[in-house]
Amino acid sequence: MRIGVLTSGGDCPGLNAVIRSVVHRAVADHGDDVIGFVDGWRGLLECDYRKLDLDAVGGILARGGTILGSSRVQPAHLRDGVERARGHVADLGLDAIIPIGGEGTLKAARLLSDAGLPIVGVPKTIDNDIASTDLTFGFDTAVGVATEALDRLKTTAESHQRVLIVEVMGRHTGWIALHSGMAAGAHAIVVPERPFDIDELSERVAARFEAGKKFAIVVVAEGAKPRAGSMDFEVGGKDMYGHERFAGVARQLAVELEDRLGKEARAVILGHVQRGGTPTAYDRVLATRFGWHAVEAAHRGNFGMMTALRGTEITLVPLAEAVETLKTVPGDRYAEVETVL
Amino acid sequence: MRIGVLTSGGDCPGLNAVIRSVVHRAVADHGDDVIGFVDGWRGLLECDYRKLDLDAVGGILARGGTILGSSRVQPAHLRDGVERARGHVADLGLDAIIPIGGEGTLKAARLLSDAGLPIVGVPKTIDNDIASTDLTFGFDTAVGVATEALDRLKTTAESHQRVLIVEVMGRHTGWIALHSGMAAGAHAIVVPERPFDIDELSERVAARFEAGKKFAIVVVAEGAKPRAGSMDFEVGGKDMYGHERFAGVARQLAVELEDRLGKEARAVILGHVQRGGTPTAYDRVLATRFGWHAVEAAHRGNFGMMTALRGTEITLVPLAEAVETLKTVPGDRYAEVETVL
Amino acid sequence: MRIGVLTSGGDCPGLNAVIRSVVHRAVADHGDDVIGFVDGWRGLLECDYRKLDLDAVGGILARGGTILGSSRVQPAHLRDGVERARGHVADLGLDAIIPIGGEGTLKAARLLSDAGLPIVGVPKTIDNDIASTDLTFGFDTAVGVATEALDRLKTTAESHQRVLIVEVMGRHTGWIALHSGMAAGAHAIVVPERPFDIDELSERVAARFEAGKKFAIVVVAEGAKPRAGSMDFEVGGKDMYGHERFAGVARQLAVELEDRLGKEARAVILGHVQRGGTPTAYDRVLATRFGWHAVEAAHRGNFGMMTALRGTEITLVPLAEAVETLKTVPGDRYAEVETVL
Amino acid sequence: MRIGVLTSGGDCPGLNAVIRSVVHRAVADHGDDVIGFVDGWRGLLECDYRKLDLDAVGGILARGGTILGSSRVQPAHLRDGVERARGHVADLGLDAIIPIGGEGTLKAARLLSDAGLPIVGVPKTIDNDIASTDLTFGFDTAVGVATEALDRLKTTAESHQRVLIVEVMGRHTGWIALHSGMAAGAHAIVVPERPFDIDELSERVAARFEAGKKFAIVVVAEGAKPRAGSMDFEVGGKDMYGHERFAGVARQLAVELEDRLGKEARAVILGHVQRGGTPTAYDRVLATRFGWHAVEAAHRGNFGMMTALRGTEITLVPLAEAVETLKTVPGDRYAEVETVL
Repeated sequence: MRIGVLTSGGDCPGLNAVIRSVVHRAVADHGDDVIGFVDGWRGLLECDYRKLDLDAVGGILARGGTILGSSRVQPAHLRDGVERARGHVADLGLDAIIPIGGEGTLKAARLLSDAGLPIVGVPKTIDNDIASTDLTFGFDTAVGVATEALDRLKTTAESHQRVLIVEVMGRHTGWIALHSGMAAGAHAIVVPERPFDIDELSERVAARFEAGKKFAIVVVAEGAKPRAGSMDFEVGGKDMYGHERFAGVARQLAVELEDRLGKEARAVILGHVQRGGTPTAYDRVLATRFGWHAVEAAHRGNFGMMTALRGTEITLVPLAEAVETLKTVPGDRYAEVETVL
Repeated sequence: MRIGVLTSGGDCPGLNAVIRSVVHRAVADHGDDVIGFVDGWRGLLECDYRKLDLDAVGGILARGGTILGSSRVQPAHLRDGVERARGHVADLGLDAIIPIGGEGTLKAARLLSDAGLPIVGVPKTIDNDIASTDLTFGFDTAVGVATEALDRLKTTAESHQRVLIVEVMGRHTGWIALHSGMAAGAHAIVVPERPFDIDELSERVAARFEAGKKFAIVVVAEGAKPRAGSMDFEVGGKDMYGHERFAGVARQLAVELEDRLGKEARAVILGHVQRGGTPTAYDRVLATRFGWHAVEAAHRGNFGMMTALRGTEITLVPLAEAVETLKTVPGDRYAEVETVL
Repeated sequence: MRIGVLTSGGDCPGLNAVIRSVVHRAVADHGDDVIGFVDGWRGLLECDYRKLDLDAVGGILARGGTILGSSRVQPAHLRDGVERARGHVADLGLDAIIPIGGEGTLKAARLLSDAGLPIVGVPKTIDNDIASTDLTFGFDTAVGVATEALDRLKTTAESHQRVLIVEVMGRHTGWIALHSGMAAGAHAIVVPERPFDIDELSERVAARFEAGKKFAIVVVAEGAKPRAGSMDFEVGGKDMYGHERFAGVARQLAVELEDRLGKEARAVILGHVQRGGTPTAYDRVLATRFGWHAVEAAHRGNFGMMTALRGTEITLVPLAEAVETLKTVPGDRYAEVETVL
Repeated sequence: MRIGVLTSGGDCPGLNAVIRSVVHRAVADHGDDVIGFVDGWRGLLECDYRKLDLDAVGGILARGGTILGSSRVQPAHLRDGVERARGHVADLGLDAIIPIGGEGTLKAARLLSDAGLPIVGVPKTIDNDIASTDLTFGFDTAVGVATEALDRLKTTAESHQRVLIVEVMGRHTGWIALHSGMAAGAHAIVVPERPFDIDELSERVAARFEAGKKFAIVVVAEGAKPRAGSMDFEVGGKDMYGHERFAGVARQLAVELEDRLGKEARAVILGHVQRGGTPTAYDRVLATRFGWHAVEAAHRGNFGMMTALRGTEITLVPLAEAVETLKTVPGDRYAEVETVL
């Protein structure tokens, strides 16, 4: 068999572990050929690839990033994207393509699959927002990094007698905020799924100070927003240069809470540090299993599917199902954490 | 409601997180009283306890160990253990008891439950060998510690051109060996569920050297044993002083592999470092959720049950079911890893 | 002997290790009494203190923050600050005061010492800017945290093919930038001691891309500024709400470099995470030694002094000398790093 | 200039950082040629080497091990070792050789230097036992790994109410034991420099239990021995198979202390995990500076010297001086720690 693999979208700890696992399983066990497309879909569309043998994946298991590079190019961006992909697959004699990526990548994977290409997707997102799988690799690492930062910030908040508003990743979903906030014992957690009421939030923090505590930690997902009318909010939050990237809910919350509480409040934005570097053991295991099972799916002809974790098993789910909805934090999970603050 | 909580058995990262979560949910939300028994079942049998309010659990979420202490005392060890427990529960006016522990503890919990006491168990084991739950807290931390050690040992094995036999915890099951070996890219993994053939193992390592590699890492669970007749094996592995604790499969394997391969082989025994210290974010979240749901079960009168993780949900399973069998590494999980070595 | 100890100024990993060491040495060995003033100089000025025995310092060695609390109150802020301090010292029968703090704290210590109070200072600064000592505790932890973040950011910068401008602490000196940048292999390091020329910096990064590299990491100390006339620079860098805290050189640099290079550039501001949490082993050892030697100095009547590291020895230096100048990065240290970028 | 570099002896975190720094400084700044000998002195003696350009050292700064390999081969082991080295140096047109290694390596370096070869040594030892330099890279990492393990072991010792005897590296000197024991707050530290009296040690631990504590941690360097006649001691400590590697002072101490104290005592042997893996930021900085200064020394013709840390400066010391004595733990350092236990 001849298999092509590619990584697409943002950085995510575990990408190299998947690539390595695909190559180990395919080359060492099945005697397959594996090639890797460079910079994601761009490599497929431009037929830019390199051979992946066992040596090519030596020592990469624990390394962050992706040896194949990535980009945000999508086949749908080109008028003839699907046709070009089909042509290169035929030219290269590929029997299977394993794209590793997030929601956008999986949508592209579905598009190509619907066009008849032999695709087995591997889901990737630090945000944990892909439906049909209990978890994806990268998320555990992101939560671990955020939790370690929160552990450190707690002693500083306490020494300085401050409110710290810590912004973690999560544009559409609050999974990282929920898990890292729960793991670190945050005193309030604010997620995009549930627009916050600034009065309520402020009262919650105030209650903590009234109970004699000298500091508070609020974890907020970057995509969190106030309930309509709850407070002035700079939507999109542009900075003085007009760049969206510098704005943030944490800074606006810090200003607002400082005013209301009469306590020093500071924003800390964890940023990219959550999505890079060596994966946790958990993510390495999950990534390795996904790679292994993607090759098995290819050999069984299970195309148009995506690997997924269900309980302790790796299963396959239709790509169509996986990209239909975003997996958001359900109300009962939020309830769990609200009560232990 | 009045709730008693206790921790029993060996150390396990996340015990304090469960205790804290029980107190937060019970005291802060339900207005319950919570007491903690000192040193596990001993505290219940001798009525040695202390009040647990919110202050008592401040700052313990990320700390290893257990603020309540632990012991290996079991109610069944005393002729009148069950009666004494029943008596103290009545005297103290307890409406629920939440024992947190491993297989032995849960068996004791079942015994007391069968005798009519209101029990909700919380499973705990770094070994991941409790059936009926996908995972227990402590396991992820143990795997993480072992993986970090393996990452470090790899560079040393390579520099020294050696075979390193790394012994990890797991007397009856190979979960820690499987996951840490997979996460660190070990070249062979040896588990108790599948007695090893020394010829096969030796050939596998030899093949690696023949392929030009200069070192090898073998991960072995402490309870692994050779297939009958495969090699001389000091069962129980006593040391020169007659203590079982110093023996180990790794040392015997190192001697054997060094002889067979003509390469320096060394044993490294990770030991207790795997079961102590601060829990990973994953384990803190799981422990916190278990604590929360144990309190909910108590309030709903769901006694004789144990909290369990199924997929992403916390559910309840009968104690009877949980202690019936040990959860061992199934063949297909072992197959996954065998092929990527 | 009766000794008072206090911690003043910003959070710094190792404060608790000093407190513990003072108590161990004074109480356990010399049979002294030790009291701890609450919230730094405020505690001394308002006679707010608590007894510190061996139990009071149990388990704090590895914990971040300070069990005594801190504040930015200084004796010089009160008209009668020195007299009040003198009065409380007399009332409490103190034979020595050990203030642990940074430049401001040591200046206050000198003031009180000049007024005749028996002071032995212990220097503390994550910034490493106190003269007369090779290093202070807290710095190694800050550098470690920043380096770990940079390690992670490198893979993300590479995957995303970006320039990342990473802002680390250092308002007046570039020690953290220098050491973390050197440790992580940054491609440019910008420090306050040497105002940067934006053309030069931009060319350096451009040269890297021209050499075929796909990303770059620039580490910048928060206090770094451009050479006069080199680029438009928002001094003080206020944000849209008029708060100084949200501005930063990294963001301005990101905008400028993106424009000049035509590559995506992003700012990451590590912030408070550098100054909290558990200290490294290095910092715990240094802090413990400082505490031990401060007690010895008190017992020998060496007042008006500060503990200092010189080579591998702990010595005493006059407070007057310590606070005279700020320790800045010397040119030859900068030269070392410039060449290995 | 043409420079040859090699790494010799046991693994030590920071070796790759030195190699990288040598290449960066020599190639990028001075326009030198650099070659790396494979497997230490063996490479020089057999003229086995490879070119080291900037690409060859890309991405190795943070990696453990050595890209050049290592071995324990020494020129003095061959009758004509010095002459062969001289011949290869002439054939290759080398202007300088930079060997990176420990005591044995530096002795060989001195031998070659005395024979007229242009040598600049770089000291390396996780044990910190090389005289003439305040510290060497690798030590801080080893102490960090041991301290992290001790942090974890403390909670387990406490939960299990045990004495843990933790054996760390240090055959001839107790630096790792001293620093990790001090950093983790061990209750007794046993070093080779000061043979222990088992009665004294046992009483110290007993005193702790009498004071109401429930556990104790004893850190012991692998080379520690009892005072003559103090207790039966298996010198060399061979195991049942006659291998020296499995014996250990920790196990013998555990047996002895368990007998005397009537408390469970267990040995934990940290082993190779202390000498591998990614270096701490501290070690990366020191290693990088050593490499830079070694190249400078070569360019200034300062041969027969070794780089050394003195305070905050990198200086050069004669190889002759460096290998004359072993740097042992002085009495006053031991006194510092004894009092804070």
